[in-house]
Amino acid sequence: MGSFSAVVEYDGTGYRGFQSQPKDIRTIQDELIKALNTLLGSFKRFSYAGRTDAGVHAKHQVICFETEEKLDFYRFKWKLNCLLPDDIVVRKISGVSDDFDARKDAKWRQYSYFVINNTYQSVFLKKYSLLITKRMDLDIMRKAAEKFCGKKDFGSFCNNNTPGFTVREVTGFKIRKFPEGLLVFRINANSFLYNMVRIIVGTVLEIGRGERSIESIDRAFNTVDRRLAGKIVPAKGLFLTNVIY
Amino acid sequence: MGSFSAVVEYDGTGYRGFQSQPKDIRTIQDELIKALNTLLGSFKRFSYAGRTDAGVHAKHQVICFETEEKLDFYRFKWKLNCLLPDDIVVRKISGVSDDFDARKDAKWRQYSYFVINNTYQSVFLKKYSLLITKRMDLDIMRKAAEKFCGKKDFGSFCNNNTPGFTVREVTGFKIRKFPEGLLVFRINANSFLYNMVRIIVGTVLEIGRGERSIESIDRAFNTVDRRLAGKIVPAKGLFLTNVIY
Repeated sequence: MGSFSAVVEYDGTGYRGFQSQPKDIRTIQDELIKALNTLLGSFKRFSYAGRTDAGVHAKHQVICFETEEKLDFYRFKWKLNCLLPDDIVVRKISGVSDDFDARKDAKWRQYSYFVINNTYQSVFLKKYSLLITKRMDLDIMRKAAEKFCGKKDFGSFCNNNTPGFTVREVTGFKIRKFPEGLLVFRINANSFLYNMVRIIVGTVLEIGRGERSIESIDRAFNTVDRRLAGKIVPAKGLFLTNVIY
Repeated sequence: MGSFSAVVEYDGTGYRGFQSQPKDIRTIQDELIKALNTLLGSFKRFSYAGRTDAGVHAKHQVICFETEEKLDFYRFKWKLNCLLPDDIVVRKISGVSDDFDARKDAKWRQYSYFVINNTYQSVFLKKYSLLITKRMDLDIMRKAAEKFCGKKDFGSFCNNNTPGFTVREVTGFKIRKFPEGLLVFRINANSFLYNMVRIIVGTVLEIGRGERSIESIDRAFNTVDRRLAGKIVPAKGLFLTNVIY
């Protein structure tokens, strides 16, 4: 008994996002709650670190819950994973303090976006990456990435947000290159606005393809206007990859 | 016009292996030939480097064909990939000499087998790896791997082979460790017998789990008897990863 956190990995392809929705809509949260209910009967204070959108994946989502049951971490994880569908797995279970909240206590979150810049897309990464066949300028994309770092109003780089509550702090934005044209865009921030990573990556990709100037980022930051930023990229390339407390 | 080779990648999950079979059995070869026929009308001298079994994947299979058509490599590859199913992709097309044979001219081939030695299996690698939850001794597995190197009679480490034609040369066998318990078994040889990689990996895993002695390998080499080797591991963890000419 007590409070516990779990690190959860999932392939979001078949889900309408993490958060529970009206009935008959498949979500990660519902699957986790169903499995926890089966094993624990009841539990309290369910919370989670990041509300990933429909089709977004996670290597490292964090959830938390409180139970009266005594848990053997290894056996409990094994049983949970037997109950969960094939595309959701619990990587780790830990004990946490009774006032722990997976969302409120998160200091920063990391998202990674996978792009394949090549003449073909690997069959193994197709479900998890965006193919761009046009040659891109990595140096200018890295310069563009720097412009997003710091505490700024990201109102132009999100959808459907309340004006005035759109200041966030991006603490790191790196683009790493791997064989076969794989580019990984990795962004850390204290928290993220709705669609923020996918709009930022879309903007940087337009700059990399020469379809947009690097200065356009300043203009988008100076006037809060969604139309000044780039197009949103598909959900399938996006992963929640870390949460730090 | 002339002779051409192609590097092909595929997810073998939905196929009964590379080689064509009686009708209504799905194979990689049939899909490639169907797409080539659509684009070229006809072609001659189709050959391929490795006859991967049902469920086995490839990062680097090599095929070859001769055609009367003039090929623009980039456009031809693009069209082929439009015609091929989602789980097969052509990575590269090259011109080759008219007597080139993808099978006979291969100097050596490399296969890789993916094992997850952890308490859970990543949802992203589940289709492509074998989960082993029991703790394994990597040092002893690496010592065992060395015993397979050299020119030897692998008659005990294959299924359904003609006695006396089972000598092969293994030129390298490494086991690399990656995060989250991923172990990659990588074997190079001039050529491979039927099920040879999967029986060798199965034998080494039994040694790693302490269920078999390292000396049992010598006994299996000294007497050609399939029953002296370990159990075969599933096809889903196996990839053809390179072919050198």
